[in-house]
Amino acid sequence: MFFEGSEKKAEVLIDANNINLLTDVDNSFWAKLVNCCHAQILSTIENSYCKAFVLSESSLFVWQDRFLILTCGETHLINSVEYFITHYGREIITHIIYQRKNEYFAQAQPSCFGDDIKVLAKFVDGKAYRFGELDSHHTYMFHQTNDFKADANDKTYELLAYQISKKASEILTQKHLSKEEVRRFLCIDELLPEFTIDDFVFDPYGYSMNAIKGKDYFTIHVTPQENSSYVSFESSLNLVELAPKIVDILKPASFDLLSFNEADFESLCSNNIPSDYVSNVLASTMLDNHYLVHFANFILPQTQFTSPIELDVSGENHAL
Amino acid sequence: MFFEGSEKKAEVLIDANNINLLTDVDNSFWAKLVNCCHAQILSTIENSYCKAFVLSESSLFVWQDRFLILTCGETHLINSVEYFITHYGREIITHIIYQRKNEYFAQAQPSCFGDDIKVLAKFVDGKAYRFGELDSHHTYMFHQTNDFKADANDKTYELLAYQISKKASEILTQKHLSKEEVRRFLCIDELLPEFTIDDFVFDPYGYSMNAIKGKDYFTIHVTPQENSSYVSFESSLNLVELAPKIVDILKPASFDLLSFNEADFESLCSNNIPSDYVSNVLASTMLDNHYLVHFANFILPQTQFTSPIELDVSGENHAL
Repeated sequence: MFFEGSEKKAEVLIDANNINLLTDVDNSFWAKLVNCCHAQILSTIENSYCKAFVLSESSLFVWQDRFLILTCGETHLINSVEYFITHYGREIITHIIYQRKNEYFAQAQPSCFGDDIKVLAKFVDGKAYRFGELDSHHTYMFHQTNDFKADANDKTYELLAYQISKKASEILTQKHLSKEEVRRFLCIDELLPEFTIDDFVFDPYGYSMNAIKGKDYFTIHVTPQENSSYVSFESSLNLVELAPKIVDILKPASFDLLSFNEADFESLCSNNIPSDYVSNVLASTMLDNHYLVHFANFILPQTQFTSPIELDVSGENHAL
Repeated sequence: MFFEGSEKKAEVLIDANNINLLTDVDNSFWAKLVNCCHAQILSTIENSYCKAFVLSESSLFVWQDRFLILTCGETHLINSVEYFITHYGREIITHIIYQRKNEYFAQAQPSCFGDDIKVLAKFVDGKAYRFGELDSHHTYMFHQTNDFKADANDKTYELLAYQISKKASEILTQKHLSKEEVRRFLCIDELLPEFTIDDFVFDPYGYSMNAIKGKDYFTIHVTPQENSSYVSFESSLNLVELAPKIVDILKPASFDLLSFNEADFESLCSNNIPSDYVSNVLASTMLDNHYLVHFANFILPQTQFTSPIELDVSGENHAL
């Protein structure tokens, strides 16, 4: 069965002089905010810098002065953002960034990026971009236009892997798979030494993990089923440097890298992207908010003709 | 402004002992059939084998024992197929093939492939396939399962070019562009000597052309606007052999080739695809109806980072 792994993502920064999101906001508020997009909180971990919630569809991270929410499937994330703005007022917000990866079953979504940014435009001025061409992997990004200027050291990375190997898909879709088995397969201990980890195995498939250590965060979401497989990684750790390890584990036919404020993105790619992959998309810009954004898609050129996927004629559209 | 160039396509074969589609069916019937999917007939040419109609959204070709209809934009093509079946009865139909390329603004479509094949399944048994991965170029294909076996000499080719060069896009989006200028730019005289040609330049952009010669047909549909450009070619002529010429004219960042019954597809690609392109998708199968189908997507690897496309925050969703 098809599941839309592609994530919508919102990051909202606030003036911590007004409110401290860690100490002044109850978990019941975050539960309501998450419910607004038709997701639920499944579990929570925290340290003195960060609270991390595993959701029924992806993750929510809360720091003192900002929150980051990623949701997949058919969630209506913009509703959660609107809930926050209307509850606390736009005055306390110092910056909003809203992102959306292209979907593969867009007709099932409750809104498109254009609809979403019209909601944001009711509250804040902003600019919007598409990184990558329409007929290829692309990501949409909206950011508020105001006085906010990002700190050059505020770095974030995403690695989105598509069409993982048949073997990886088989391992990750095994019945009664345990968290420990997934962690072992993904080499979590090696990737994330000393992180506090919170993870969840979904029925019949799927795996979500949040990890925090000090101010650092790392999140993984796995949609493992063959023919529509997708594994996303997002972190403050450098995922371009970790790409060789991740790509070796999953052997995806295609993957995206996205970074905020990684000035060495190009040379890091030259040094770290396995040489059998070629660049399909390369886009970058310095946004007005001083986030330097790079987006790239890499593909493994095909050499063999494969059989098409047979579809169920009488079945669920989502199998398409 | 975004326009969905991606085509839906239906081919319906009938028993010509019952009815001759050229002589027994009035153009008023075809006009009604075309209206069913919310398109209109703009003009017609014919010879003793074939009638070809340029439509407001693509083309209709009628031969004695079959018709082929391609429609783009937000047309609801399956309604036209259903109109034909209910008007003439499924008894006269010897075979149906229904195809749909992945769209780039799927949420604006009146139906998805899954919806469409449920309509067909009311009338005929069939099988359905997806050629290519979800996160890349892919095409959906349904075919009726019955006694019909295709003639190995019944060959058809499609070439679908995406993200044509900036220069090609500029030329094809010029104001007051004439048919002659488009024909010259696309080297129609060289590609199609001795063909009867019928073409149409749309306002503000776009170009459609039908060409026939004996039983052969050739059709071109141009969506030229930068950032969502698309040019489709479909013909009984060998478009793999013509690919070097077409690719040289348009210099697309990516293109698909699809063929029916081209046994030499692989070697033709080796000999004709310009060496700067790499294979992103390769899928093939011999369908139960004895059509040997090949589908391939080629991309031009990127070497330079480009700027993202800035979107109109307050504007039309279709600009996304």
